[in-house]
Amino acid sequence: MEVTRTLARYLVNSRWEDIPQRVRHEASRALLNWLGCAVGSCRHETVERALAAVRPFSGPPQAAVLGRAERLDCLNAALVNGISSHVLDFDDTHARTVHPSAPVLPALLGYAEWRGLSGAQLVHAFVLGVETECRIGLSVFPEHYERGWHITGTAGVFGAAAAIGKVLGLDERKMAWALGIAATQAAGLREMFGSDCKSLHPARAAQGGLTAALLAASGFTSSERAIEAPRGFAHVTSTKFDPAVITEELGTRYELLNNMYKPYACGLVTHAAINGCIDLAREHSIRARDVERIDLTVWPMVMELTANRAPRNGLEGKFSIFHACAAGIIHGAAGEAQFADAVVQDPEVIALRERVFAVPDPAIRKLEARVTIRLKNGAAHSKHVEHALGTLPRPMSDADLEAKFKGLAGEVLPPAQVEEAINLCWQISAQTDAGVLARAAVPRA
Amino acid sequence: MEVTRTLARYLVNSRWEDIPQRVRHEASRALLNWLGCAVGSCRHETVERALAAVRPFSGPPQAAVLGRAERLDCLNAALVNGISSHVLDFDDTHARTVHPSAPVLPALLGYAEWRGLSGAQLVHAFVLGVETECRIGLSVFPEHYERGWHITGTAGVFGAAAAIGKVLGLDERKMAWALGIAATQAAGLREMFGSDCKSLHPARAAQGGLTAALLAASGFTSSERAIEAPRGFAHVTSTKFDPAVITEELGTRYELLNNMYKPYACGLVTHAAINGCIDLAREHSIRARDVERIDLTVWPMVMELTANRAPRNGLEGKFSIFHACAAGIIHGAAGEAQFADAVVQDPEVIALRERVFAVPDPAIRKLEARVTIRLKNGAAHSKHVEHALGTLPRPMSDADLEAKFKGLAGEVLPPAQVEEAINLCWQISAQTDAGVLARAAVPRA
Repeated sequence: MEVTRTLARYLVNSRWEDIPQRVRHEASRALLNWLGCAVGSCRHETVERALAAVRPFSGPPQAAVLGRAERLDCLNAALVNGISSHVLDFDDTHARTVHPSAPVLPALLGYAEWRGLSGAQLVHAFVLGVETECRIGLSVFPEHYERGWHITGTAGVFGAAAAIGKVLGLDERKMAWALGIAATQAAGLREMFGSDCKSLHPARAAQGGLTAALLAASGFTSSERAIEAPRGFAHVTSTKFDPAVITEELGTRYELLNNMYKPYACGLVTHAAINGCIDLAREHSIRARDVERIDLTVWPMVMELTANRAPRNGLEGKFSIFHACAAGIIHGAAGEAQFADAVVQDPEVIALRERVFAVPDPAIRKLEARVTIRLKNGAAHSKHVEHALGTLPRPMSDADLEAKFKGLAGEVLPPAQVEEAINLCWQISAQTDAGVLARAAVPRA
Repeated sequence: MEVTRTLARYLVNSRWEDIPQRVRHEASRALLNWLGCAVGSCRHETVERALAAVRPFSGPPQAAVLGRAERLDCLNAALVNGISSHVLDFDDTHARTVHPSAPVLPALLGYAEWRGLSGAQLVHAFVLGVETECRIGLSVFPEHYERGWHITGTAGVFGAAAAIGKVLGLDERKMAWALGIAATQAAGLREMFGSDCKSLHPARAAQGGLTAALLAASGFTSSERAIEAPRGFAHVTSTKFDPAVITEELGTRYELLNNMYKPYACGLVTHAAINGCIDLAREHSIRARDVERIDLTVWPMVMELTANRAPRNGLEGKFSIFHACAAGIIHGAAGEAQFADAVVQDPEVIALRERVFAVPDPAIRKLEARVTIRLKNGAAHSKHVEHALGTLPRPMSDADLEAKFKGLAGEVLPPAQVEEAINLCWQISAQTDAGVLARAAVPRA
């Protein structure tokens, strides 16, 4: 069965007119969410380290380092922006496979700045890139992931290759080569979780996929059966391979519609409890000093992963459900700002977190929680969060995504540019020059 | 067991004085062989395609594209020179694992040009890089290779990271990070054999290993158990892992001493027969027109892989034992020149190849052959080649390597530079500036 060629043929033949409005709008949402993550973490130490390492080798200033004044050649920009996209673990997540945007958009937006792309071209290529990486990821999931591969790296490289291959106008054979050159660069080990290398995975995927498409455009050859061959990507990296997931319903099923955005800057498992706390505090105008105690009933894994009673800094705060809920009640949010060292060390937050109690319950699902806040005056308010905000049954609204973007990019860009970038993301398909978005995402001199 | 840290500690603590003279000399031999391959194929179409693709992104002219006037930044130079190192399949081969030089030397010589390294530093780092990639490759061989990984790509990236990590003077922890950042980039599928991607594997290994060491030097973190962890390189990519192969006899066993160089520009399986033909023709001054017939007794796989009776061009000629032996008798050599289209189509060569006959014999080993040349005057000359030239029991001599270099580089460089480059390889450990070798390996204006 021809898998690589079938996928390549679809990518080449897909027309902008074929992309449903709902998918285009989801692309805008993904773009806004991604850009906020990349801009918001542009001064993260992991980004600084990578930028310092590659800067001496950079070519012409073709593309922005998002959020910063530096400009790099497209290949190095894809690497650095790939890292900032993912380093906070705050970027989007497909329900069962990759973080879709981080491997694709850094390659694509940099290319748009360099060579010029319309917004529609960018969105179209992005949709196809996401489709490619998600389908390839799903075809080998979960065995591939269970073996130890970080699927955002291994499948992501195909997404970037497909997206750039599309904007380069590759024919079917060269598109198959681009996918093959991507396949033979697919890498990324889960062993790296907890180190800077985790965010290197989508970054190398973005850079490698861009390289793959550029090489294919130059006539650089590859196997044309790189995904399905006995010594191809799927069989070498997984014991499971379901080719139909890649080849069926092309152009009718869109994996981008299974994309999720995180409202809170910490692990997904804590989201339902935080969600309940923030909602109750807002609905009942609860102030920290009035709270007697907070009781959470949670999925048992929450206690294994995030039961840190006394976090000392922001990173530890992300693994403390007690901190996350206390900060959520006081601040009405749980973005990056609520995981700053100063907030984790704030006496008011500490006093409240000591009154947060959690019990595991095997009957509670992963993204579900029950929350009760008891006040000193004897009142009690309860909430059952069946699906945390940001899950597929209960997605973040467009307004939620705007607020998240403001929280991230507002630390880096002046308010007028924050508004401009938001508007550009919603209107991206109508732009004649998608590069305007990159220019809105760096501080103006 | 600490594998990655043990290896890192050895790499950091190794001193130049510790490297035996025999190993240093083998490094010169490998350097000469590698440089000839890279220079000789500098105009290969695969190299042209890659250069065209990456040139728009290149930074400062830090390093030579070997054999050519173009200069690129070190990262892009490592890629392009990595391709030219391997594209002819004429580079060195460790007896049971990687092609050692192609992933390491393109990174190292480019770095030497850019930052300055003494010849001893370069040789020392090269020896350590080869040790690293070979030991890691051997620790997972053969299951890793049988699963479909091109081990020169997957293990090679560790070699480049170790070599560059050494010249950067990384401490033990950062060296472990460099190995980890290499591990999480390890890639390359055997499915790509027969396409341009085969030579992309050592090229990406060189570039990725260089990147890994530079990132580690900037403080970019990684797992420090990247090789041995349950989700580390070895377990994710192989069902076999023998850590002792990596950690034992460090500093006493040198895998570079198991390195082999190919005298003939085609697959190893034909080498014994070619060897016998060339030797008999020289020893008995045999001319093609005097030959009645040539009979070969060969390892059975030779007939499966190289039984092309009527090759039409140079590439097909490499898979025709009949052509290779006929050209060898007439030219006294079987280098790249003997696999030119014109030689494959030469009527004199064709006439002789039609008188070459081969029979398989299960009692004959892989690099063994029996050759009999019968002359029209009734005389017959026979030879049993027990070990083909270039194997470990019968290595190419230094003079053989010089002749091979002249055959490859002589097409690109003027004779004085060919001699200069040869002398620099033999004397490399005494050079204060190893970059002189790169400058000798490009045509002077």
